[in-house]
Amino acid sequence: MPTKKELLTSPIQHIDIKQHNVVPMVDAMHSMAYSSRDLARAASIYERMLRDQECGVILCLAGSLISAGLKQIFVDLIRNNMVDAVVSTGANIVDQDFFEALGYKHWIADDLYRQGTEDATLRELMIDRIYDTLIDEEELRLCDDTCKVIADALNPRPYSSREFIREMGAYLEKQGKTPEKGGVDSIIYSAYQTDVPIFVPAFSDCSAGFGLVAHQHGRGDKPKVSIDSVKDFYELTQLKIANPTTGLLMIGGGVPKNFAQDIVVAAEILGLDAPMHKYAIQITVADVRDGALSSSTLKEASSWGKVDTTFEQMVYSEATLALPMITGYAYHKKAHAQRKQRRWSRLLEPVTA
Amino acid sequence: MPTKKELLTSPIQHIDIKQHNVVPMVDAMHSMAYSSRDLARAASIYERMLRDQECGVILCLAGSLISAGLKQIFVDLIRNNMVDAVVSTGANIVDQDFFEALGYKHWIADDLYRQGTEDATLRELMIDRIYDTLIDEEELRLCDDTCKVIADALNPRPYSSREFIREMGAYLEKQGKTPEKGGVDSIIYSAYQTDVPIFVPAFSDCSAGFGLVAHQHGRGDKPKVSIDSVKDFYELTQLKIANPTTGLLMIGGGVPKNFAQDIVVAAEILGLDAPMHKYAIQITVADVRDGALSSSTLKEASSWGKVDTTFEQMVYSEATLALPMITGYAYHKKAHAQRKQRRWSRLLEPVTA
Amino acid sequence: MPTKKELLTSPIQHIDIKQHNVVPMVDAMHSMAYSSRDLARAASIYERMLRDQECGVILCLAGSLISAGLKQIFVDLIRNNMVDAVVSTGANIVDQDFFEALGYKHWIADDLYRQGTEDATLRELMIDRIYDTLIDEEELRLCDDTCKVIADALNPRPYSSREFIREMGAYLEKQGKTPEKGGVDSIIYSAYQTDVPIFVPAFSDCSAGFGLVAHQHGRGDKPKVSIDSVKDFYELTQLKIANPTTGLLMIGGGVPKNFAQDIVVAAEILGLDAPMHKYAIQITVADVRDGALSSSTLKEASSWGKVDTTFEQMVYSEATLALPMITGYAYHKKAHAQRKQRRWSRLLEPVTA
Amino acid sequence: MPTKKELLTSPIQHIDIKQHNVVPMVDAMHSMAYSSRDLARAASIYERMLRDQECGVILCLAGSLISAGLKQIFVDLIRNNMVDAVVSTGANIVDQDFFEALGYKHWIADDLYRQGTEDATLRELMIDRIYDTLIDEEELRLCDDTCKVIADALNPRPYSSREFIREMGAYLEKQGKTPEKGGVDSIIYSAYQTDVPIFVPAFSDCSAGFGLVAHQHGRGDKPKVSIDSVKDFYELTQLKIANPTTGLLMIGGGVPKNFAQDIVVAAEILGLDAPMHKYAIQITVADVRDGALSSSTLKEASSWGKVDTTFEQMVYSEATLALPMITGYAYHKKAHAQRKQRRWSRLLEPVTA
Repeated sequence: MPTKKELLTSPIQHIDIKQHNVVPMVDAMHSMAYSSRDLARAASIYERMLRDQECGVILCLAGSLISAGLKQIFVDLIRNNMVDAVVSTGANIVDQDFFEALGYKHWIADDLYRQGTEDATLRELMIDRIYDTLIDEEELRLCDDTCKVIADALNPRPYSSREFIREMGAYLEKQGKTPEKGGVDSIIYSAYQTDVPIFVPAFSDCSAGFGLVAHQHGRGDKPKVSIDSVKDFYELTQLKIANPTTGLLMIGGGVPKNFAQDIVVAAEILGLDAPMHKYAIQITVADVRDGALSSSTLKEASSWGKVDTTFEQMVYSEATLALPMITGYAYHKKAHAQRKQRRWSRLLEPVTA
Repeated sequence: MPTKKELLTSPIQHIDIKQHNVVPMVDAMHSMAYSSRDLARAASIYERMLRDQECGVILCLAGSLISAGLKQIFVDLIRNNMVDAVVSTGANIVDQDFFEALGYKHWIADDLYRQGTEDATLRELMIDRIYDTLIDEEELRLCDDTCKVIADALNPRPYSSREFIREMGAYLEKQGKTPEKGGVDSIIYSAYQTDVPIFVPAFSDCSAGFGLVAHQHGRGDKPKVSIDSVKDFYELTQLKIANPTTGLLMIGGGVPKNFAQDIVVAAEILGLDAPMHKYAIQITVADVRDGALSSSTLKEASSWGKVDTTFEQMVYSEATLALPMITGYAYHKKAHAQRKQRRWSRLLEPVTA
Repeated sequence: MPTKKELLTSPIQHIDIKQHNVVPMVDAMHSMAYSSRDLARAASIYERMLRDQECGVILCLAGSLISAGLKQIFVDLIRNNMVDAVVSTGANIVDQDFFEALGYKHWIADDLYRQGTEDATLRELMIDRIYDTLIDEEELRLCDDTCKVIADALNPRPYSSREFIREMGAYLEKQGKTPEKGGVDSIIYSAYQTDVPIFVPAFSDCSAGFGLVAHQHGRGDKPKVSIDSVKDFYELTQLKIANPTTGLLMIGGGVPKNFAQDIVVAAEILGLDAPMHKYAIQITVADVRDGALSSSTLKEASSWGKVDTTFEQMVYSEATLALPMITGYAYHKKAHAQRKQRRWSRLLEPVTA
Repeated sequence: MPTKKELLTSPIQHIDIKQHNVVPMVDAMHSMAYSSRDLARAASIYERMLRDQECGVILCLAGSLISAGLKQIFVDLIRNNMVDAVVSTGANIVDQDFFEALGYKHWIADDLYRQGTEDATLRELMIDRIYDTLIDEEELRLCDDTCKVIADALNPRPYSSREFIREMGAYLEKQGKTPEKGGVDSIIYSAYQTDVPIFVPAFSDCSAGFGLVAHQHGRGDKPKVSIDSVKDFYELTQLKIANPTTGLLMIGGGVPKNFAQDIVVAAEILGLDAPMHKYAIQITVADVRDGALSSSTLKEASSWGKVDTTFEQMVYSEATLALPMITGYAYHKKAHAQRKQRRWSRLLEPVTA
């Protein structure tokens, strides 16, 4: 049996869209067919939503994207004012982004270890597998523990995930886990610095959940931190109300897609008639024929009054191929050049830990 | 333009596995190939986990399953003691199951209206579409409102989704929305009666979210009900600790799959070494190659120490085809005949509204 | 390393739809959603095309279906007068059906051997793998050789694949490889007996191709048998002209789907205005978004004037699940009871070897 | 109803990989995950097979690729000595490439017309649809007719598709449908000029089939041109024997994939022990779980002794996204710089019309 160290030698490296001017290639794809044409149209819609001065942009993340080498893209979108809020699964934000911010890495699985037949060996070595990528489970446990440490230090009350994630940003700053101090950059820290709120509506469903369960377990009958997902929904809805024109850039489906689409209806329920999301892009390989929300078309969302149909585009592609092209296109066309910074976190109630 | 009434004439009807003895056909499939053989093996594993007296069965639901005609299956599993806990998306439990319990229905979309090209018409008529199925949006709003009514009546504090859903069961009983009183049966009510806990880890991401946002908005600065997803995770983990041998019957992936798998690790973090899930079945059409959790193999989960590989089976099929066969097989083989009722809700802290 | 014999112990067994009355279950699926409703509608369309006295039914086979345990279904369709012509890939008809008619079997791969990681072992043992199914390559070579033997005995000239396959039926009869003589039944032999023509438009792309290449190689410069795929197309078009009302039952896509759809246009080119296929069903898991013919909708085929849209249905399912239900439904509803036998082989030029 | 002219205004334009240096981006993808890493590995394998002086490269085409804007890539591969033989479906080579060589175009379908709901209108206007692309059916009929004209002029005997396609190249030259004479370049013509053989094993399954059926119909009992698919197989096998080291670059599956893989076995049957294909790449979105050849892994092919597993890579992507990157990578790395031209057509029997 190999050692853990032997298996964890080649790290995942994050693609830097700033280095690759894909504009000419994406422009060529406008006159092709199938996914390339859809991708080109999606890129143009993203460009258009960035140029629309009224439009707030919500980025939705599902699937294991950070471990796949896409982290730098999201950091660049945040730092270049190309996104105003993030809605994500917990795995992306905590297990993967925060994990890397703490100094850990994801590793390339070589061919033998991505087949599934060696998973018992990986188990024994305490290595976790995500398809073709490996993680040191012992490091992941340290990530869980850090979430407990953060919770333990907080005033016990219900928090939105957004509030808690902001505390994670503050923790990184305090610990010097920042690019300024020689650490790696992260979604959490860049969003912390630029007041971009991050929502994880199913926040206990990740490494943070482990830390928080340990926290609540440790507190016993005493007051404890809880995570109020209703508050997340309420906060995101308030942003929609404050900034009625919105666009969605969605990778994958799942809870983030549903959650972000639903705020239109939530605003209406609060008596404030918000318009549908004006722009919407989804990158996915999910097949529409199973009827699930993840794969449902953006046209279907229009029947629910959630997404307008003028500027919507589904892109049928695994995200590591499509996302660098769509975001790189908007970046190199400088679509964000005139964009005002929204600093939406400041609109929400001050975090009082 | 047609009227709403003209479009909503043929209701979805739920398949009754008790009427269809699929045992001979599934047995034949054991000697075929591809999905049929996988399905037969999954059916045998489900049979086996029901016959295993030690095994607690956790049912995981993702995708729009109730609207698709599968509700009666889940009710039958609960009433026949074939499942001990449910982990689900909110849409299945609130927007669809609770919605039907309140007396509303889902409707078959005829060919023209399932294409997507008539979604603007549907929008105008306040009809929502799920692929080939239609819903009266005004009725759905009444479902949202009912969630608010339930929240308004509760003692303001953090609740697990399980606690809140139990209150929804109590509400149905109080309002006479039960089969005994001439209403239709439901997952929520059957689980309420049999003490089967239902967890919805992303509880604000559904009709209940709308009601709860309205509740919190209405309360302003006063104490309010919040939904603590950490508590859900803690509760489900306690069940795993109390009943170490477990099996998963998963339809779709998403948060329910991840959440239920994670309790093995959570138990370990609490210092109680729980075994991996001994049995696991997942029905899905998600393609493994996008690397997402929803599509990840159960072998991959074994590298995380979550699922044992001896009795695991992925079934590649849309659920409306595979689920009646897998569950019908176990039902007609009377695999549950000797099973003890677990009444897991009673293990958890008493609901004190 | 195991021996070949150890790996080839559990044979694939073909499902017998005559034993499973799926009518009540399929009827229930009419009021469900997604694939189940589509499947129920497809079953009704197949029933309808069998009850339509004018309608000739063309069965199209792509994918490895015979090796998967579906052979008996096709034999039953032929023997019960539920299909009038077959268009197939070569693998189904030669490598798998003829192969089994010669007395060989397909074998169930156990879990370890279906993962792909043991393929080098299989290679060494001369075992071929089809996903989760194993074949003795040495037996397959005997199947190739038999095709050469048949070709060597024929008058050297261009043959349609249909003519050649008819000779294969005659060979089985001559060799006593028939159910009457204690052999197993086959698509080729049942079609031979009932004058159901079988077309394999890419006939060299299978075991027969190996035999025929050996034949042509052996003949050197002397006259040889050749396979004229134009003749296939011409013959099938003649059937369309002779029997203008037609229906397609398609499993998978590929050449068979395209070929059978195209005869409408071919008839028109010959100056005989044939109507579009009146009925069409396709079972497939191919995703429409790659733009390929295999996955293209039947509505798209209507733009080409090939398929009418009144009675068409795509069913999104792997075939081993959907086909027994669709064909079993029509069989148990006795849709074929009043059907006249067409014996289309007799319409085509007599085979003169 | 719009006019045909109004619908056919924006032509598909073919992407030019020579204009887009994707090397840095593909190199970055080597350290990512999922499809991007697979794509990068595939690009490296293609580079490697071009640098291997022994290796003959066979390009396999399935799916509607030319109509999708990929034609120029294939022309560039041929003209830059990056491919030695082509195996394709008929649609790509005849209905699309030859069609464009005759001066016709493919057209972008706007959003309304790609949904399927307007196919009756398209039918009436004699416009054919391929997913999101439109074709003038009257022009396609002229393409069919041209195939008949070519056949009528040939000496009546069995031809391999390769021989016939070479005649199509000669026809283009004779008619001045060449870039030199102001026409557009084509796969057929570039291959004609460079002696790259093109095989279409199911040759009657396309526009050529229509022309050839008309030809055979017109000839009645007189001698006629036939297309011998066995001869195709024999010829391609002879190339494998003459040049034992081979690599496959496959887009899609279907007959081309099977056919090209099978020549290893065919060589063996002719008594000449040819090695497995040393390199193999397949770009596809087909899901492996249906067991079909199109989706089967290249590892599975190794069990059949067809493909070596050292340098094989499946890439899960729709081709319009992946192919420009894979081929562009090899092109811009000048992998072909030292490659010798094989002119394989000259190895095969001289075409004697």
